[in-house]
Order: sequence, then C-alpha cells, then structure tokens
Amino acid sequence: MAAALKVGVAGLGTVGASVIKILDERRDALTASSGRPIQVTAVSARERGKDRGVDLNNIKWHDDPLTLAADANVDLVVELIGGAEGKARATVETALKNGKPVVTANKALLAAHGLALAALAEEKNVSLAFEAAVAGGIPIIKTLREALPGSRLDRVSGILNGTCNFILTRMEEDGLSFGEALALAQKLGYAEADPTFDIGGFDAAHKLAILTSLAFGTQIDADAIYVEGIQSISPLDLATAEELGYRIKLLGVATRTEAGIEQRVHPTMVPKSAPLAQVMGVTNAVQISGSASDITLVGPGAGGAATASAVIADIVDVARGASRLPFGVPVKELQKLERAAIQTHKGGYYIRLDVVDRPGTAAAIATRMAEQEISLESILQRKPRDKKLAEAIENKTQTVPLVLITHATSESAVRKALDDVLADGHIHGSPQVIRIEKEH
Amino acid sequence: MAAALKVGVAGLGTVGASVIKILDERRDALTASSGRPIQVTAVSARERGKDRGVDLNNIKWHDDPLTLAADANVDLVVELIGGAEGKARATVETALKNGKPVVTANKALLAAHGLALAALAEEKNVSLAFEAAVAGGIPIIKTLREALPGSRLDRVSGILNGTCNFILTRMEEDGLSFGEALALAQKLGYAEADPTFDIGGFDAAHKLAILTSLAFGTQIDADAIYVEGIQSISPLDLATAEELGYRIKLLGVATRTEAGIEQRVHPTMVPKSAPLAQVMGVTNAVQISGSASDITLVGPGAGGAATASAVIADIVDVARGASRLPFGVPVKELQKLERAAIQTHKGGYYIRLDVVDRPGTAAAIATRMAEQEISLESILQRKPRDKKLAEAIENKTQTVPLVLITHATSESAVRKALDDVLADGHIHGSPQVIRIEKEH
Repeated sequence: MAAALKVGVAGLGTVGASVIKILDERRDALTASSGRPIQVTAVSARERGKDRGVDLNNIKWHDDPLTLAADANVDLVVELIGGAEGKARATVETALKNGKPVVTANKALLAAHGLALAALAEEKNVSLAFEAAVAGGIPIIKTLREALPGSRLDRVSGILNGTCNFILTRMEEDGLSFGEALALAQKLGYAEADPTFDIGGFDAAHKLAILTSLAFGTQIDADAIYVEGIQSISPLDLATAEELGYRIKLLGVATRTEAGIEQRVHPTMVPKSAPLAQVMGVTNAVQISGSASDITLVGPGAGGAATASAVIADIVDVARGASRLPFGVPVKELQKLERAAIQTHKGGYYIRLDVVDRPGTAAAIATRMAEQEISLESILQRKPRDKKLAEAIENKTQTVPLVLITHATSESAVRKALDDVLADGHIHGSPQVIRIEKEH
Repeated sequence: MAAALKVGVAGLGTVGASVIKILDERRDALTASSGRPIQVTAVSARERGKDRGVDLNNIKWHDDPLTLAADANVDLVVELIGGAEGKARATVETALKNGKPVVTANKALLAAHGLALAALAEEKNVSLAFEAAVAGGIPIIKTLREALPGSRLDRVSGILNGTCNFILTRMEEDGLSFGEALALAQKLGYAEADPTFDIGGFDAAHKLAILTSLAFGTQIDADAIYVEGIQSISPLDLATAEELGYRIKLLGVATRTEAGIEQRVHPTMVPKSAPLAQVMGVTNAVQISGSASDITLVGPGAGGAATASAVIADIVDVARGASRLPFGVPVKELQKLERAAIQTHKGGYYIRLDVVDRPGTAAAIATRMAEQEISLESILQRKPRDKKLAEAIENKTQTVPLVLITHATSESAVRKALDDVLADGHIHGSPQVIRIEKEH
C-alpha cells in the first residue's frame, strides 16, 4: 500500500464539513478506490470554535489558509473559501507554487483566473481539479474533459443555477410572484440574503464560462457572456408560456455559430416536452451535443453531500495518479474565444408588450416587425384574469398585454423593431423579451 | 511529444470503421487530449475486400485477430469482434497476456469473463476499458468507476436496450402490435433478424451485470439476474398503463435490499412524470442513486459514431496514462454478490387477467389476493375497443380483461395468489404481470 495522501481543507462550510465526514465514513471504500489511504491532516476556517458536526481533533488547525497551503504535512489542498480574489486565490496560488495539487469548488475564481492557475498547475505538473465548481452532483467536468474526445462539440447548455430554477418552478406550479418565490427560496436556504448573484444570472455565467472552455477548447472568457437574470419574469409570462406549450428556464447556452462562439445566460422558453423542461426545483441539468454525442445529465446542483462527493472524486483521481490537465488540453493550446455578439443570435422570440388600447396599434406594431423581416408565428392578446385590471382596461386607463411569437429571426432585427415600436408611442414601459430555444 | 500510441482494431463493423474514421478526422484534437499521436497500425476482420468507407492502406491487415493481438507493432488492442467466447475472448486474452491494454465494446464477454480478464489486466498492469459496452454514447462506466467514490450507491437502473425501447415507443405512440413494431425495428436496422437477444432482455442483462459490479463493488454475476423480455406486452397493456398514468419500459434494475443485491430486467410500469418515462425511441438512460448522489444520464445507446466515441475516450485515457483499474477497485476486493431472489422483490404490480365472465369471479379473485395480504390500489374492468371482441364478450364466447393494481407487496405473495386463481379456474391463459416502479 502506498503512503497516505495528506489533505488540507481550507474552508469549513457545509461542503467542507461534508468532505471531512465522507472521507471518514467511507475510509475503506476510498482507500480501495485510491490505492492508498486519504487522510485529512490540516484545516482552516475563520471561526475555530464553531461546531461543524465533525471531529477536528488530531487535525492541525490553521488560522490562515495560506499557511495551510504551504504546510509540509499537506499533499493536496482543497479550496472551499470562495470568491474570485483574496484568500481563495492566494491559497490556490500558494498551494500550486508549492507543487501541491488543488481541488476547488470555486467557480468565480476559475471564471476570473482559471487559465493562469491552470498554467501554473501545468508548470508544476500537478492537478487543478474543479468538478464541484459546476452543477455540484453532476460529473459534467469529467464528462467534458475526458468522455467526449471523439466528438466535435457544437453546443453545451443547461440549467446551471438551482436557486433560479427553484424560483421559476414555484412561480409556475404555485402561481407565486417573483418576489414571493424569492422570499420562499430565502426562507428555505436556497437563496442568499443578497440574491443578486444567483437571480441576476452571474453564478450561471461563471459556470457556463468554464463549460464553454472545456467543450470548445477555448480560453475562458466570462466577460464575453451575455447575461440576463430572471427578475423581470412575471406570472403572466409563465401563464402565457404554459398556454403556448413552453416552460421558462434560466439557461446557460454556448454554441458554435458562423459568427463565433455564442455564450448567453437568460430566461428561455423551452418546449414542455424537452428534457430540460422536465427539470424542476433546485435540480441542475446539462445537455451536450456534437458530432458523435447528444447526452443529457441531470442531478443535484448544490447541497453539501453532492458537492462534497464531487470534491472527493477529484481527490481520488489525484490519489490514484489518474489526474488530467485542468482543461483537458494544455492551456497554451486553448484557442482565443471568437465571440459571437448577442446581436447575431438567431432564434424565436416571445415579446410581451403593454399596448395602448386604440385602433390600429396592433397593425402598426406588426408593420414594424415586417419592416425588419420578422415573421410572426402567433399573436396573442389576452385580457388579464385580474378583475380590477380588466375593469381598468374597459375604462381605457390600463394597457392590454399583446404577445408576439416570432419565427427564427436575429436579435438585432428584434431590437430594431422594438426600438421603432417604442418610438411610435404604442406601448407603455419596456417590452418583455424572452428567447425561445426549440432545440432543447 | 511522446511516441505515438499504436492501435490495432480487431473487428471492422460499423463501430470499428467509425473508430478509424474519427481517429483520422480528429487527429489534431486527439493528439492534444492525449499528449501523443494515436495511430492505427493494424486491423483485422473476416472479409478483407469489403468497402468500409475508410482508407486501410498503410495499415497492416491480419486475417486472424490473434496475430494482431500479438503484433509487436500494436500497443493497444481494440476488440470489436463480439461474442462471449471464441475469437473475441482469445483476442482479449492474447493482448493482455502480451502486456497490451485492451479497449472493448463486448458486454457479453465482460458479463461472462470480465473478472478473469480484469484480474489478468491487473496482473499485467495494463488497462481493460469498456465504456462502449454499456449504453454506447453515455459515459456511464466512467461515471460509476470514477465520479462517485464519495457516495454509497443504493440503486442503479435504466433503459439499457434501444431496440426494446424503440418497439415499446412505437407500440405506445402509433398503436402498433408487438409484431408490427418488431418488424419496423428490423426494417430500420434497430433489430436483428433473430431478435431474441434484445427483446428477451438478455442484452440488457449483460449490461446490468456490469453496472451492478461497478455500482456495488461486487463480482459480476449475470446468472443471478432475473430476466423477462417484452414479447408478451400487448397494446391493451399499453393503453391501460396510459389510462393509469404510466408508461411501460424495459428496465434493468439493481438495488441493495435487506435480502442482498436484487438484479432484474423486465417490462416495468413507470409514472409518466418520471425521468425514465420521457426516454423515447432508441435512446438509453441510466439513473444512479446513493448517499450523496441522484443523477440521470440520457443519450444514444448504440450507433456507430456514439459507440466509437466511447471507444476513443478509452483509448485517450490509455494514451494519457490516466487509466484506472477495470472495476475501480482491485478485482480481489470485489465482494461476492449476495443474491436477493426475485421472490423477495417488493413493489406494486399490474396484473391483467382474462377472466371467465360469470357472477362472483371478481370477488373470488379479490379473496385470493386478500389471503396473501395483497392490498389492491385499483381494479379496472374494461371492454376491449375491438368490435368483434366486444361482441364475443356479449355472446359469452370471450373473456373480459380484469386489471388489478396492487399496493407494494412481495413477488412471492403475488405468485401464490395467482397460482390459486389459476387453480380456481376463473381465468383463461396466463396472467399478465408487470412490476411497477414508482421510484423512477
């Protein structure tokens, strides 16, 4: 039996505690899988006294994760501090510089500095592994990095943020407003006190940036992602989607197009029969398609045990000596990402307008669409179910929502047409625009 | 750059030709992933002259795969001959004995001799890899072997045979009879001229045997699998399932139970809302659940490119030096499989009986069920839609189907009750029994 792999865990939140617990509970099975024992020799966190439900006796405590990262009695550093800068970044850099492999769940760090850190890992010939950074319980990193080299991938897309999917599911199934569903998510611990990072789509964007790089062999470019959150989605949008045969999901999508690689995160209408439309609550899912593959992976996106399990899979890979280059190919061989701007996006659109209720408005709007060569699949004008709102429309003090569904068209045409409609004074407020993905 | 990995391909059917084609087309990407070029240096097949759409010039031809397996100019042998014995087995054995890693798609060989071959591979310290053997395009072997060491698995189940799923889908969606759907599958190349191996459930059983071993760390025991095919499924069963909110799928299921590991392949009623119920046509899907995971993988089960892609992923693993023990842990550490007999299975049952139409029959049957403490969730007696059949029932020359849905009960209780019902003379022919899985 080879010598034990000595692990230092920096960050002892839910995931960190769960990692230590599982390493203890599954000691024998993990030794068999790894060919050597795995032993936690050091930990670091902000509060030493806190009860985390795990026994930290006989484990060296570091107040500073940087001293853990340099501890000679640590062979591998698990970074669970979080954040793109500060201690998290310094811990990973210190570990790699000391020739220690790193396992991290930190998508923000990878989205910002993944390439530089991977280059450092390659220079030191050690692993930088991050299965837990994207879709916690789903082995999407291993799948993209190792399982599909025979396929030229064209598209990777998915439900990458459990908080948003939970909110949209509750809005759809229970008729909650966005605010009510968000409050429920916060109460259940699925959303932070400041939820912007999740509901604004930024968390999903960090994850998509990593998946794009693995799928297409391109340099991570999170800034090239077009991002919209779910804050503007209303019960009316969900009800209309339902009538039209769609569900609304926050998707991250990366595709090869003629204009380059298109990366976007936004609320999306997907046909109810599509695999991604079946994914409810905090569950995540990723679809990958290419020349020789078309697979969907579904599983928990977060949660202590699922994310800890991903961390442990990475540790076992290192213990076995079966580690791979962080991005599957040497960093220097990753291509610069040729960005396809959102304006070149082509697809169907759902457009909801608060229309001024006077003769000729619909015709004028349709004309503006036609001028941009946008062809309409359907036009739906529905009175709100709310009685007061219906009365207000009768009294002409309230606008009537008009919903347009377009055939495939370009984003730039839609934007131009809507600018014209807005300038014409036919609508109140901003148009609600939701992209439709029939491929899912 | 390290020296090229020299590959010999034994068996040049659709998959073998596709492997050669993809290795050629994706040469640069694969070299980047592997850290070294991958080069096909030898091939073997029965007919030399046949046009396979790939250029075999400059590749050494072996009439006998055994000489390929011993060829000093071959570093790795891809076995795509098929069959549990004969040339396939001898080729793999010869390659391993010569210290050459083997990549194979041969589930029959693995189900029968996987342990002995894996032991030989371990002894020689080379890989025996078989991603392509189960659910072609889905990376289920890598997932079970490498992605979930942190989770104690309780259950693995799936749609493992595309032919059966295609037949059941066409029966359900187009109202075809079993015979008609089978004929269509044969016409489209989804079923063999002799379809027994697929429709009888034996192909799914071979695959399940491999998954069970990986999921539970047990020795492969294909003989311990309870197997039923789909031949007896009628349009009436599918129509009744639809009414009751189920779909019928041929599932392979392996679970931990108090009585041991239960392995079974049979037609199964799954709720329409379950992920596996969404899987249509020749697509495969696998669900895995355990202490820290609950994931579903969906993708193509067969097809030249998808299966070839799995073969290539294994080749790249070997080229990279990232290979793993064939079953994730040393063969000698695999536990003997404690078999839970099908009689101890617990679950719901759909039972369709061709009942003699006379007073008291339903009551007598219900009594027999009650004697075995089987509680019934619903009883459904429906006249066939077929006019002639309905007339025959009017004339009492034809029986009326009676459908019983039970709450969770044991297989042995159901069998005893049905034996009694049969002995009572209340029914014609054999009862149709389909197990219900609500967990899916």
